[in-house]
Amino acid sequence: MLDVVFFEVFAEEEKALKKYLPATLKAEFTPHTIQEAKSKNLPAPLISVRTQSVIPTAWSKRLKGVLTRSSGYEHLLDFRRENKSDAACGYLADYCSRAVAEQAVLMAAALLRKLKLQTKQFDRFNRDNLTGFEIQGRKCLVVGVGYIGRQVVDIAKGLKMYVKGVDLKHAQKDLKYVGLLEGIRWADVVICALPLTKETRGMLNYDVLKQIPRGSILVNVSRGEITPLADMERLLEEKILGGLGLDVYENEGRLAVALRANKKVASPQAQSLVRLSKKEQVLFTPHNAFNTYESVERKAQESAESIMAFIKTGKFLNPVPQE
Amino acid sequence: MLDVVFFEVFAEEEKALKKYLPATLKAEFTPHTIQEAKSKNLPAPLISVRTQSVIPTAWSKRLKGVLTRSSGYEHLLDFRRENKSDAACGYLADYCSRAVAEQAVLMAAALLRKLKLQTKQFDRFNRDNLTGFEIQGRKCLVVGVGYIGRQVVDIAKGLKMYVKGVDLKHAQKDLKYVGLLEGIRWADVVICALPLTKETRGMLNYDVLKQIPRGSILVNVSRGEITPLADMERLLEEKILGGLGLDVYENEGRLAVALRANKKVASPQAQSLVRLSKKEQVLFTPHNAFNTYESVERKAQESAESIMAFIKTGKFLNPVPQE
Repeated sequence: MLDVVFFEVFAEEEKALKKYLPATLKAEFTPHTIQEAKSKNLPAPLISVRTQSVIPTAWSKRLKGVLTRSSGYEHLLDFRRENKSDAACGYLADYCSRAVAEQAVLMAAALLRKLKLQTKQFDRFNRDNLTGFEIQGRKCLVVGVGYIGRQVVDIAKGLKMYVKGVDLKHAQKDLKYVGLLEGIRWADVVICALPLTKETRGMLNYDVLKQIPRGSILVNVSRGEITPLADMERLLEEKILGGLGLDVYENEGRLAVALRANKKVASPQAQSLVRLSKKEQVLFTPHNAFNTYESVERKAQESAESIMAFIKTGKFLNPVPQE
Repeated sequence: MLDVVFFEVFAEEEKALKKYLPATLKAEFTPHTIQEAKSKNLPAPLISVRTQSVIPTAWSKRLKGVLTRSSGYEHLLDFRRENKSDAACGYLADYCSRAVAEQAVLMAAALLRKLKLQTKQFDRFNRDNLTGFEIQGRKCLVVGVGYIGRQVVDIAKGLKMYVKGVDLKHAQKDLKYVGLLEGIRWADVVICALPLTKETRGMLNYDVLKQIPRGSILVNVSRGEITPLADMERLLEEKILGGLGLDVYENEGRLAVALRANKKVASPQAQSLVRLSKKEQVLFTPHNAFNTYESVERKAQESAESIMAFIKTGKFLNPVPQE
């Protein structure tokens, strides 16, 4: 039998993982989610996923351990709760905060400067409607000031933006914290770096964001459920938002499977997404903000170390906390 | 007769200019270059251009003044020299350095993170080959540390890049200056912010850039003649450059006219450009780095003030220096 199966592994990650895992380990790698791979039976007592696989109830009894190769672990909490599973659950500590934060600010900057339209209009050398906003002096609201949010604050300040934060804890001494609505009413750019919890689900919805100054930019790089897609579409249609950058999506697991299978008509949501992604003031990336050589390396090393720790001791390096 | 004709005016700029010019002034505005407008006779004693019009020799005798709405004025030096013209020549002082510098770093960051490919692969939610480089910790060489270059240094340091500069003058106290080749051999990212002079023409050519670490990024936001296009294409083909961001082009005036007329086959250079612009590791923008609301406003105000100063006193606010 196999020792471990890694689901949702992209090409570069597989290469890096193999470097850090011992050659004696019987490991298998697939780019697919559990659902795409269509394995009926549990292929190994230990599995590793990212955020898009749903672990089948039928697997839960024999499953010894599951490591999510992500910093977010709300999907493993769901699995444990729904299946009353005793499987050990692990996650990765902060391995990609800077990469994610850099992509968030890059997306905001590209939207402020209409980079998509600038490159599109190159082939006619046409500069009409390409006037953008300078980044320096813009007001940036960071919603969720954890590992990633702190890096967003650092980068935005480095670019000489005005920066305020929204968080339950006011842990950063040199950051001005405000309430969510106060911040939204102030911001030229909102960057969402919240974890997904019962409280944050749907937090940046239409009713909240309609209070933003007209034409402001929203970027979400944490979890799609915080920014419902129907609300985002409406905010763009009504020209309340001037730009939208998403790296994460509501029901992302299902959406990703549908898009990879090219089932564009699979759901109203998938259709809505594809429509939205064509707009000039929209930047959609495939949950890729973490994806730098530096992060892939740190992630592969942490994943391999956590897998080997589990095999030796029965415990992951970072166990998912009990609720 | 008209008081002044403004060539090469895009929509947003015309609106801003009208705000700052007196209503009594007989002014005309056209988005076209002098060549595109096909005016045989000088339409007014005073004209204003950007960088793409060539002032006809036939106009040079009756022309009283010409204001270039750009910080670079090498095309007016050429005009004066070639036509032995006595027309007063004016240019704009530093009105858009931050905007240009921000776009330069934005292009470099987008290339480091493969933003073009990231958004392209969204519709299949495919993350293969999307691994990029983190911006923090990269080595950035700023070639030409004038108004724009200084802002590039400031932004790159704000993003926690390592920064070195190349310039004849070593005017920035907190910047390490190096020789061009030493810098090229060191850099992950090269940003060109040089003015065009006899000395800088073709300076960043194949022979110089082939010494860059393989896969590094080049961005040019100043003048296209410094980075010959045939050399750029070869550096990409040979995978010496990992990314190329251009806002300016060799023979840009002719190229822009050809592209606007959709004469894609007008010249081997235009063909080469269109081919290049399709590549995933290439970002081409239509000489638009200056184009922010903040810059357009400052530029319109400076242009209007300089035009009115000329009408009243016969002198522009910033006269092009004698060679």
